[in-house]
Parts: sequence; structure tokens; C-alpha cells
Amino acid sequence: MSPEQKMAELGLELKEVVVGPVGLLPWVQVGNLLYMSGRTPDRTGKAWNGQVGKEYTTAEGKEAAREVAWSQLCAAKSALGDLGRIKRVIKVLGMVNSAPGFSEQPQVINGFSELFVEVFGENGRHARSAVGMAGLPGNVPVEVEVIFEIAE
Amino acid sequence: MSPEQKMAELGLELKEVVVGPVGLLPWVQVGNLLYMSGRTPDRTGKAWNGQVGKEYTTAEGKEAAREVAWSQLCAAKSALGDLGRIKRVIKVLGMVNSAPGFSEQPQVINGFSELFVEVFGENGRHARSAVGMAGLPGNVPVEVEVIFEIAE
Amino acid sequence: MSPEQKMAELGLELKEVVVGPVGLLPWVQVGNLLYMSGRTPDRTGKAWNGQVGKEYTTAEGKEAAREVAWSQLCAAKSALGDLGRIKRVIKVLGMVNSAPGFSEQPQVINGFSELFVEVFGENGRHARSAVGMAGLPGNVPVEVEVIFEIAE
Repeated sequence: MSPEQKMAELGLELKEVVVGPVGLLPWVQVGNLLYMSGRTPDRTGKAWNGQVGKEYTTAEGKEAAREVAWSQLCAAKSALGDLGRIKRVIKVLGMVNSAPGFSEQPQVINGFSELFVEVFGENGRHARSAVGMAGLPGNVPVEVEVIFEIAE
Repeated sequence: MSPEQKMAELGLELKEVVVGPVGLLPWVQVGNLLYMSGRTPDRTGKAWNGQVGKEYTTAEGKEAAREVAWSQLCAAKSALGDLGRIKRVIKVLGMVNSAPGFSEQPQVINGFSELFVEVFGENGRHARSAVGMAGLPGNVPVEVEVIFEIAE
Repeated sequence: MSPEQKMAELGLELKEVVVGPVGLLPWVQVGNLLYMSGRTPDRTGKAWNGQVGKEYTTAEGKEAAREVAWSQLCAAKSALGDLGRIKRVIKVLGMVNSAPGFSEQPQVINGFSELFVEVFGENGRHARSAVGMAGLPGNVPVEVEVIFEIAE
């Protein structure tokens, strides 16, 4: 089953991520490395606004992280045309907007990592750091950047 | 026009960054990837000290970020001898020393990104995360690390 | 003297890091780059719990950072079988769980960097950022991720 078929089976329709005419890039490929910009939760249109450990529970943060994984898959699909070109996931930096004293960043970012394993299987496993930020753009609870290895 | 000429046109004289006899390295090149250490604002001699959202406004933070971009270009010039050897900017991690509740990290780090586009044009665009830190060395408002692709 | 011999001379016995049957990976190698997951202090069994600048002094944070370096060397040994396969250390992201106002992140992460230079000599020097996080998993004071270059 292709990654796209697995996404469909999970009920996660992909949408296109467009490179704007000016400004930043959602990805840059150099050789077989595809560097993705940090992305934030935007799948459901829910207006995420707050820190985990205060406005959001760990479980809600995990839900946000799963939305971020979907968003990165949309960007990768737009970059590559075919998610099957992803040979493996290399490295994830999971950043959790953390209220003072919050220390369950890995449990939050598992929402990101688990979707990658559901979609790519063994090749979705990755090196990772899951850490606590003092703030994130627009006060979203989670932002994640990722490096993919692309088949040559 | 070369990157050095564009820097001169912007009134941004380059200064050498020296690798000390002991300690850390301002850059490491491996293959065609040039990894730069995080740098902080040091162009004007202004004693930056404080968080964005408290001691500094977003606009002041953006000014600091532009100083960091200058500093990274000085380091890259020292590393390569010729900024024309930079094929493109790959990835930027923009770190903003953020007061509680501050969430305009992208607007701050745009000060960094915009100078890169002024100097390198289309090849200056990059993948990026712009995020909020609880603290930075010497309480500077901004630190940025970057990966360049070097022409072979 | 091999890196393993230097570790022994320093009284730092290596222990194996096992890849679990499910979940995250402690490392991913792609080409000659070995990406290590963030690791936390776990050498002595001391229950590290707190922020630097509050529960821990800078000197104690530095001690924790040295434990993290040991832990990364254990993981690299498990990945490679032989630390002599490490050609050089490329890039370190040193993350310090920072109490409000704490700004001595470099002095803390020096505990990490110094052990790498003790073990690998000149090839242990690296590009680095040392920055302050709002929180870390399990409220540990330090987490560090690293990229190694592997001899081909």
C-alpha cells in the first residue's frame, strides 16, 4: 500500500502546499536530503492558541502534533509529487509551546511520530528531539521540522 | 553583482571571523554542506540585552536579527573566502529570546531572512523555523544557525 | 590512542544503547552523516530534575552536560561498533532547561563539548548552538543532539 493509500485509509486527505511568490520556502532539497520548514497544526481549521500544560492537556497537544504530521506530509507530497519517493524519515525536531513546569514533550510529539510510522512503517521511524519552547508563532501549541531522505 | 558587492551597496562592511586556537568552531563543512554555529547580534557594538516582548519590541528584535544575518555572512566569508561559492541557503533555525506570551517570532526572524534574500536573491530563500527560547547566551534577543549549500 | 582507550583513561565505561522493538531511533545514518537523537544525562543514575539557574547552578548543569556527552558516545559506539569510525563531530545543538533570566547556556554546554575534545582531539571540535529551553522531558536540566561525520 502506498503512503497516499495509507493516508486515505486513515481519512487524512492531502492538500497542496504552495510555494508563495515571495518569502520563505516550505522545503529545500539538497542531494537526497529534503529539509522541511517547521510547520504548525492546520488540518481541521481549529484555531489552536495556547501552551501545553496550561491551555492544553498533553493529550490535546498530542492531537495538535498529529495535525502537524499531516501538514508535513502535505508539504512533502507537494514537494515530491509522490510520497513513495521518501526513502525514510531521518530526523525530527519536535517543539512544544510549554507552560512553566511542563515536561511531557515526548508524549506530545508522539502524536507526530506515530502518524509517520502508520504511513511509512519501519521507514517512518526516526531520530528525534522533543523539547519545550517559551513561545511559538501565533501561540500554537506545537511546531515540528523534519528531514527526509529521498530515493535517488 | 557579487554578494560582496551587494553587501557593500547595503553599507554592510564584512569583517573577518577568526577560528580561535581552542574551543568551538564558527563553522564546519562536510561535503557540500556548510554548518554554521549559532551567532548573535554583534555588528554595531550595541550591547543587546533583553527579551523580545519585554525589553525589545518586535521591530527592535527584527533589527537584531538583521545584525545576526550580517554576522553569519562575515563568518561564511571567512570560511569560504568568496561568498559567491554559496550555491544557496538551505535551512535556518531562528531562535528568539521570548518574553512570556510573545508569539511574533517569524516577524523578528524576517530581519535575518530578508538580508539573505537581498544578498543572494532567489538562492537566499530557505527552509526555516522561527521559534521562542526561554533564554539565550548573554541574554541577547536573537540567535540564528544556518546551513549553506556550497558549490562543488 | 583510540577514542575507547581515552574513554577508559577518563574512567568512563561505555554501555550499550539498544534500539527498542518499537518507537523512536537513537540514531539514523544517511550517507556519511550520523544523526543522533537528543539525549539526556543518565550516566550515574543521579535523578536529575530541575532547571539551571534555579534548582541547579551553572557548574551542576555543566556536570549534567558531560553526562549527556557520555550518553551520546555510548549511543555512537552502539551504532558504529567502533568510535574510531567517527571522522569528526559536525554540529551540536545544546539545549539547557533554563530558569527565567538564566543566560549562561554556553558555559553549561561546555561540559558536553569538552568531553568530545578530550576523546576525539581536534576532530572533536564542532559547530554549535547552546540555547535555553522552557522545558525538557522529565524536567532534566540538559538535552543535546549531535551530527557526526562517519569515515566512508
